[in-house]
Amino acid sequence: MSVTRPVGFRAAGVAAGIKEGGARDVALVVADEPAAVAAMFTVNRAAAAPVTISRAHVAAGPTGRAVVVNSGCANAGTGERGLAAAEAMAAAVADAVGCEPTDVVVCSTGPIGTYLPEDRIAEGIRSAAAVLGDDEASGVAAAEAIMTTDTVPKTTVVVGDGFVVGGMAKGAGMVRPDMATMLAVLTTDAVVDPEVLDEALRTAVDRSFHALDIDGCASTNDTVAVLASGGSGIRPDPVEFIGALTAACVHLEEQLAADAEGASRVVVIEVTGAPDDATAREAGRAMADSALVRSAFYGGDPNWGRLLGALGASPVEFDPTRFSVWFAGVQVAADGEPVAYDETALLEVLAGGNFDVRVDLGAGTAAVPVITTDLTPDYVRFNGERS
Amino acid sequence: MSVTRPVGFRAAGVAAGIKEGGARDVALVVADEPAAVAAMFTVNRAAAAPVTISRAHVAAGPTGRAVVVNSGCANAGTGERGLAAAEAMAAAVADAVGCEPTDVVVCSTGPIGTYLPEDRIAEGIRSAAAVLGDDEASGVAAAEAIMTTDTVPKTTVVVGDGFVVGGMAKGAGMVRPDMATMLAVLTTDAVVDPEVLDEALRTAVDRSFHALDIDGCASTNDTVAVLASGGSGIRPDPVEFIGALTAACVHLEEQLAADAEGASRVVVIEVTGAPDDATAREAGRAMADSALVRSAFYGGDPNWGRLLGALGASPVEFDPTRFSVWFAGVQVAADGEPVAYDETALLEVLAGGNFDVRVDLGAGTAAVPVITTDLTPDYVRFNGERS
Repeated sequence: MSVTRPVGFRAAGVAAGIKEGGARDVALVVADEPAAVAAMFTVNRAAAAPVTISRAHVAAGPTGRAVVVNSGCANAGTGERGLAAAEAMAAAVADAVGCEPTDVVVCSTGPIGTYLPEDRIAEGIRSAAAVLGDDEASGVAAAEAIMTTDTVPKTTVVVGDGFVVGGMAKGAGMVRPDMATMLAVLTTDAVVDPEVLDEALRTAVDRSFHALDIDGCASTNDTVAVLASGGSGIRPDPVEFIGALTAACVHLEEQLAADAEGASRVVVIEVTGAPDDATAREAGRAMADSALVRSAFYGGDPNWGRLLGALGASPVEFDPTRFSVWFAGVQVAADGEPVAYDETALLEVLAGGNFDVRVDLGAGTAAVPVITTDLTPDYVRFNGERS
Repeated sequence: MSVTRPVGFRAAGVAAGIKEGGARDVALVVADEPAAVAAMFTVNRAAAAPVTISRAHVAAGPTGRAVVVNSGCANAGTGERGLAAAEAMAAAVADAVGCEPTDVVVCSTGPIGTYLPEDRIAEGIRSAAAVLGDDEASGVAAAEAIMTTDTVPKTTVVVGDGFVVGGMAKGAGMVRPDMATMLAVLTTDAVVDPEVLDEALRTAVDRSFHALDIDGCASTNDTVAVLASGGSGIRPDPVEFIGALTAACVHLEEQLAADAEGASRVVVIEVTGAPDDATAREAGRAMADSALVRSAFYGGDPNWGRLLGALGASPVEFDPTRFSVWFAGVQVAADGEPVAYDETALLEVLAGGNFDVRVDLGAGTAAVPVITTDLTPDYVRFNGERS
């Protein structure tokens, strides 16, 4: 199931000829009545036109009616013409479902630096609006229509006490950003005030998508949006609602990591012993961003020197003589120096697939995991192909 | 020729059994008399033991006598024991050539996180001191002894008006940092005061090695050292001396880029139209650091959207609507939007090998080049192997 599982939502995914090959490329998610809306957007300074437009639409009012997504073109690097094209998408949805353009969140994903085929998008939106459904097939069709290099659609359902959260996502944390922005659309039938929804989304994203760091890039188009219809009539405790929304985001995040293009394994770098969460996260990302660290992960090599070198080259303040490292639970460095361990046994474990790395900074009690993947020859080949 | 070309220097490179396979792994460069000395070191917070020791030695006085380098072990991530080992290297050189340990700059390069084989190093230093020569073969032997994954030794000679600058270098800007720290040793027979030498080195490095950015990493061991013997009796104008030292560093830098492990081409990203040099360099590095940008270089793909996305995700302030890009002189984006160009002709040019990329920020007149290479499947394979 997907975004259609909570009460009060319909969805559709159609093929509008934007992607080559006839795959679905326009997705529409519509709330039957005005719904509380919240969204988070990329921090990329070169944000795409749909991000600029959607940011303004979400800021304009506490409720929304629809999220429209096209794949096959990011509408980024497209100037004023791109802004007009994103506005036109919102207007087309407004026409089709009977709301204001400002009630529509617009997302695009695909190559940067080409203009949207506006006629096809408009026709696709009309087609999608005509086949909106609240069944499972309609939700899955929408999840398929937002895919780019994804090999499978990503959907989630989390059932709370009297309410439901549904969702869909695409991309893999910028593994292939000119084709694979990270987008997620969440729906819920909980009764949630807009300010609580906004707070809940920020917390959920912080604990899920923000922990995912495949190659250190923030795309021009990243967007996470949530609509709350209130259709269940249940107003959950905010803490309970945050928990359910976080679980949905974590579930989607795990699917993104597992589907990262060209990756052969998922590695969780947990930074412990940090003075605070922000330092732990910055440290984890500095190591996860290193092509050398991730090449070592590819080789199943417990090369703690690369972790030390990557962190040392970052702005993170830490004491190299308190730096300790474990691969798959086996300590390989203590207080900045090598320790003896059973190398044969550890290499065998690391060769097996996914593994965890723990890095302790010896400077506090904060701990934050960062999820990444290995860097593989396939990644380079995929990203070296002309798109 | 190499570090032995200027008057007043001898060098040697011997095999001490630190590297596997019997290759040369201890290099010694000695000034016959106390020489003015200057050095620059890595900014990595986890600096290796030899960097800590050498920093103190250079700070201790304005003259020096020798630079010793071992390959095969970085002596990084080795704590107090590593510091003692680096001090022991300086002491062994001091014994052999008759100077104070503080007159010796110590460098190590190789895998991080293993202890130095101290007996072999000491024996290697004695052997090297016994065969010091001022001939070309001795200079080349020293250049060979500092190689790790380098495929060829890198040396330079720049002849000034009555004085000479010689040099040797190894590595390729952290292309394989647990094996390939960037080290350079320069010698000159010009008469240069220590403070002028220090200023000249900073300028020369800024215009050469600092422009080289292969994968965004600063190793734990990077060191550039220069000794000025005064043996020519000529005191050049500082501007002339800076010019010659810069030329020598640029020549070495070009050899490093051309020998970058796993790279199939060298790409110069020139950022123009920047408000100042620092912004231009930070922008160039942000783009050169992107695995996605460098994967596109590998494919010969004029993918300006990736440059925009990478810069947008960096802390550099710029106006995406003033962002213009040229590949090999052909404009592909103007003021943040695509422009039409002869795609077939450009792809043919880019397929040919090295090329230049120009990115204009439309915000001033500063221009700085950053030299990088493409990211290739071979890079990942090299760096995924256990070292």
